[in-house]
Amino acid sequence: MGRVQAVDIHNAAVRLSRRVSLTPILASAELNRELGVDVVCKAENLQRTGSFKYRGAMNHMLNLSADELTRGVVGASSGNHAYALSVAANILGTRAVVVMPNDAPSRKMEAVKTQGAEIYQYSRSSENRDSLVEELAADKGLSIVPSSDSWSVIAGAGTVGLELMQQLARPPGVLLMPLGGGGLAAGCAIITKALSCNTKVIGVEPATGNDTALSLMKGQRVTIKHPITIADGLRHTIPSYRPFLVNQGLLDDVLIVHDSEIVEAMRLCLRYFGMLIEPSGACALAALVSGRFSGSDTVAVVLSGGNIHENTFHSLVRSDGS
Amino acid sequence: MGRVQAVDIHNAAVRLSRRVSLTPILASAELNRELGVDVVCKAENLQRTGSFKYRGAMNHMLNLSADELTRGVVGASSGNHAYALSVAANILGTRAVVVMPNDAPSRKMEAVKTQGAEIYQYSRSSENRDSLVEELAADKGLSIVPSSDSWSVIAGAGTVGLELMQQLARPPGVLLMPLGGGGLAAGCAIITKALSCNTKVIGVEPATGNDTALSLMKGQRVTIKHPITIADGLRHTIPSYRPFLVNQGLLDDVLIVHDSEIVEAMRLCLRYFGMLIEPSGACALAALVSGRFSGSDTVAVVLSGGNIHENTFHSLVRSDGS
Repeated sequence: MGRVQAVDIHNAAVRLSRRVSLTPILASAELNRELGVDVVCKAENLQRTGSFKYRGAMNHMLNLSADELTRGVVGASSGNHAYALSVAANILGTRAVVVMPNDAPSRKMEAVKTQGAEIYQYSRSSENRDSLVEELAADKGLSIVPSSDSWSVIAGAGTVGLELMQQLARPPGVLLMPLGGGGLAAGCAIITKALSCNTKVIGVEPATGNDTALSLMKGQRVTIKHPITIADGLRHTIPSYRPFLVNQGLLDDVLIVHDSEIVEAMRLCLRYFGMLIEPSGACALAALVSGRFSGSDTVAVVLSGGNIHENTFHSLVRSDGS
Repeated sequence: MGRVQAVDIHNAAVRLSRRVSLTPILASAELNRELGVDVVCKAENLQRTGSFKYRGAMNHMLNLSADELTRGVVGASSGNHAYALSVAANILGTRAVVVMPNDAPSRKMEAVKTQGAEIYQYSRSSENRDSLVEELAADKGLSIVPSSDSWSVIAGAGTVGLELMQQLARPPGVLLMPLGGGGLAAGCAIITKALSCNTKVIGVEPATGNDTALSLMKGQRVTIKHPITIADGLRHTIPSYRPFLVNQGLLDDVLIVHDSEIVEAMRLCLRYFGMLIEPSGACALAALVSGRFSGSDTVAVVLSGGNIHENTFHSLVRSDGS
């Protein structure tokens, strides 16, 4: 698959139609009043595996040849991509090897194991994750499923944006998406700009993890030091290659949010939607809590994931005031 | 509108299609493992106003004549029906009077007021709610919107079951719904039996609020004393007239759950779906926590509402062990 166009996202949506959940659009008059702007949220926390990552992993695997799919897949992640990959492989009846750091939460390892995936542990300090994945792929004849640097992963992630546009009565004025590797933003930007050229497409990053903002300013990918943020899914030190190619051309802006704003966004999702959203998943909504947006244009927000233990959630939300 | 048939529920679904949310079906392999049965949940907590009640109230109001709708509506409830009614009236641009007990939570009164509805407070101990509603209707020329004893409210509630059947790849072996006035169960039973005669349709009541179970045994509606249960939406002392006519003919069974099982069901929804479900909304799922069901048949469960303050939720879930 070459560089993604809108038609590839339409095709991905057809391919995924019976396999992914059509996640709801949530809105609340009380939330609108509190934020001073009309917001609609695409609740990808209710996607299978609890995050949008399932769309990309599944689409990538369905694009493999029958022979490749039979041999199995390998990927690296300590979080949502690992779980999405192992569930997709389980459903498609193939082998999955997941490369996880040896300090990954035991609960996450357990979830991956329960899906029948093999875990390959490595040490963050002494081993290079990407080299390990490449070695495992070569040794065992497995196909690599990247978490964002793949055209078919980007196309799969883009189905979030396609669904959103189909579910709304009219296009939003602004679309906000969290920015980690950049695959979700890239996929959603392609389809949104194709369907509604007047919708502003904006990525949101943690203040300490502003690798995409810096890279866009410099006009090339730059590496930052390891970000310290509660948004554990967005701790990227450099934008992924393919997503950056897209985002460089299509994003209207990149905004920065602080952890305290992310926590406030998590609190709002609990109060007005009764849902637990993980920090990375609340990052786009966090851009609204400090009144940066106003006016009559609807702002669409992707709540990208909800995988967080209830105790962790409450210790974050409680430690920060109210 | 006369006694409801499947076609009326199809018509209600068309009438409501742009007005209600298509709520998602949620499932979790981990939840299935914990319960020992395959469960799919219809998440009506994500419906507008946070409960399925919006479907019935809106459908009833859309069935009024233009003249009736212009004059306005009146209804009694301290909970989800009150809020659903006031939001529906606000959207349709008409007057709403809501009869609420003077000890109703101030937060709920506030929410109703914010929608522009007028609140008429009464004393539970010295005044009769239903007579008050009838007097207000007569005095002010308003139409009464019952919370369950209305064919168009039942038809609106039945769209929950219709959507569920359309969303599932195959009909479930069992459908579990909470039983309060009985409108949700009646509507869902009509459409489910019409579409899949082999699906067992089962209502679930709090143990102390078993008015429908007792009434079905006796073959006529019986009155019980005011139930003491955390499921505040299911504290009915007698089944509603029209829903009972339907449920008498169509329900395969009625099950009883204890408050501790309801709390456990709330805990499971938080853990596996990251969602706050109110006690009444978790009542149907509570029937699964004690291993009453097993086997390979899928059990579909209606999570009927999610309107609960996070502090109340946590005090309930925490006070009961784990």
